[in-house]
Amino acid sequence: MQPSYAEIEQAREAIARHLRPTPLLNYPSLDAATGLELWVKHENHHAAGAFKVRGGVVLAAGLSDAERKRGLVTASTGNFGFAVAYAGKVTGTPVRVAVPEGANPTKVAAIRNAGAEVVFHGPDFDTAREWARGQAEERGARFVGPTDPEMIAGAGTYALEIFDEQPNVDTLVVPVGSGSGACGNCIVAHTRSPQTHVIAVQSEAAPAAYRSWKSGQLTEANMETVAEGLATRVAYANALEILRDPKMGLHDFALVSDDAMRRAVLLMLEHTHNLAEAAGAASLAGACARADALRGQKVVVIQSGGNLSPDGLRRILAWDAAQGGAA
Amino acid sequence: MQPSYAEIEQAREAIARHLRPTPLLNYPSLDAATGLELWVKHENHHAAGAFKVRGGVVLAAGLSDAERKRGLVTASTGNFGFAVAYAGKVTGTPVRVAVPEGANPTKVAAIRNAGAEVVFHGPDFDTAREWARGQAEERGARFVGPTDPEMIAGAGTYALEIFDEQPNVDTLVVPVGSGSGACGNCIVAHTRSPQTHVIAVQSEAAPAAYRSWKSGQLTEANMETVAEGLATRVAYANALEILRDPKMGLHDFALVSDDAMRRAVLLMLEHTHNLAEAAGAASLAGACARADALRGQKVVVIQSGGNLSPDGLRRILAWDAAQGGAA
Repeated sequence: MQPSYAEIEQAREAIARHLRPTPLLNYPSLDAATGLELWVKHENHHAAGAFKVRGGVVLAAGLSDAERKRGLVTASTGNFGFAVAYAGKVTGTPVRVAVPEGANPTKVAAIRNAGAEVVFHGPDFDTAREWARGQAEERGARFVGPTDPEMIAGAGTYALEIFDEQPNVDTLVVPVGSGSGACGNCIVAHTRSPQTHVIAVQSEAAPAAYRSWKSGQLTEANMETVAEGLATRVAYANALEILRDPKMGLHDFALVSDDAMRRAVLLMLEHTHNLAEAAGAASLAGACARADALRGQKVVVIQSGGNLSPDGLRRILAWDAAQGGAA
Repeated sequence: MQPSYAEIEQAREAIARHLRPTPLLNYPSLDAATGLELWVKHENHHAAGAFKVRGGVVLAAGLSDAERKRGLVTASTGNFGFAVAYAGKVTGTPVRVAVPEGANPTKVAAIRNAGAEVVFHGPDFDTAREWARGQAEERGARFVGPTDPEMIAGAGTYALEIFDEQPNVDTLVVPVGSGSGACGNCIVAHTRSPQTHVIAVQSEAAPAAYRSWKSGQLTEANMETVAEGLATRVAYANALEILRDPKMGLHDFALVSDDAMRRAVLLMLEHTHNLAEAAGAASLAGACARADALRGQKVVVIQSGGNLSPDGLRRILAWDAAQGGAA
């Protein structure tokens, strides 16, 4: 259940009609503030606000007419659900998104505005997800999971763009939630730039993938992080297999605190004038955590998403003010 | 002193090596919030954070080796100074930026980080500017002014991108400070899409260009706006000539309040997850002010810049909280 490098190149062709490449930018002020040479891959510059839209479009664009008619079903109110909804919109594919009763109304509205049908079902996500799986089976629709091969291939397409623009990347730092993003980067780096180190970053408050990667066993862990995009209780087997692969897997895995991510959100805001959700700033936090090792290197940090709400932003600014207002 | 359409096409070729095209994105949630069909032209997605970098690169890329060696001189701590500094960096052109004593240290640091030399001179901008002009003459360096033909051509290059992507734009809304942006849009729209209406927007608290456009006389006006990018005390003769041209000039000119721009910054933040400085949100404020007329149209709003400081953002969020927190 993993895409090959060639399949990732095909995926790039499939999405070219619907999504444009994103910029990879260096900010002199951010370099001055961190003492590093950082290139920010702006996956927050998609209209859907996060890299996951790539995988959604890869999947939707690859459907036959009959499959498209039966549509996509998934469960999520986060970037993933919104990305699948948006991918459905741009490819003309009907999408149903199951969410638990009591799901955040703002997020439900965003998914609806992107053209998807929202179905409330059950008290929690596990129930909504199981219902969505059942619905998909019943209707012959495609159930979309976060580490489906198309989602990994989608993430791989931004890695292709990185190595096309900067062939001499020393280190690439990528946040891990389900792991699809890190997998896409590992597969592409292995073929295109085997000397590049790939470092994954996760919140120390939600370290399921980290522990699973360390131990080789699928591990559940607590999930307390502010970084919704990194909030996964369980690791995914197919992702773990790639991330632990002795040839193409990760070189390092950094855990960062939620406060370090908050600081990184503020650094990104001040020096790049981009809004990052906590997961989108996790790579920058990880690069800062490994600063001594990365000094003098060309480092790419993945800004994986910008979907921070005004309230979320207010909370981070209030946290900063309470700390004495470094930013 | 105005570039032709053909010169704008040449300018696009000249900058292609240094700057990438910016996205033109539609956000379903923003449309739902405004009742309009809005396409946001993301000039905030440059590393320099604003469209003016295009003009800086057009100018720097067009220099002979001898001219490049003598370099560029300008005066500004705003987007303009930073854009010229950044353009110098990417094209290998030395840049000196004159600023008044007591200029904002954060902005001075940003210009220095972009590789330019900052020279403090005099108590205010007029003094710094005159000194810069004198320096340029003395050294045979090029003095760069905000409505130099290359700056207008630079703005025109983003208009080319708009009409390449969306040939059926009904209305294009563009903020006016010095007017270079509006001029570039007018020249390109006149050739590429004469049926497109171009609407300029300015702050009612700094209406020099508006009054000059209305009266046909270069007019000074007060300059109290929070929108630094729109804060010009005087109109520029060459820009005014284009904006009032009976064939290619503006179709309409909207004045918006500073509060309307603050609201637009918050709309942009909530529904596009992009940081806009007040000038960068002025187009959206203008589109909202003309909503009845624009209903049912395809409307492009220029997000001209994202260089809002964390403190500026805090002030707008505090203003919103004091209003009862609509966002």
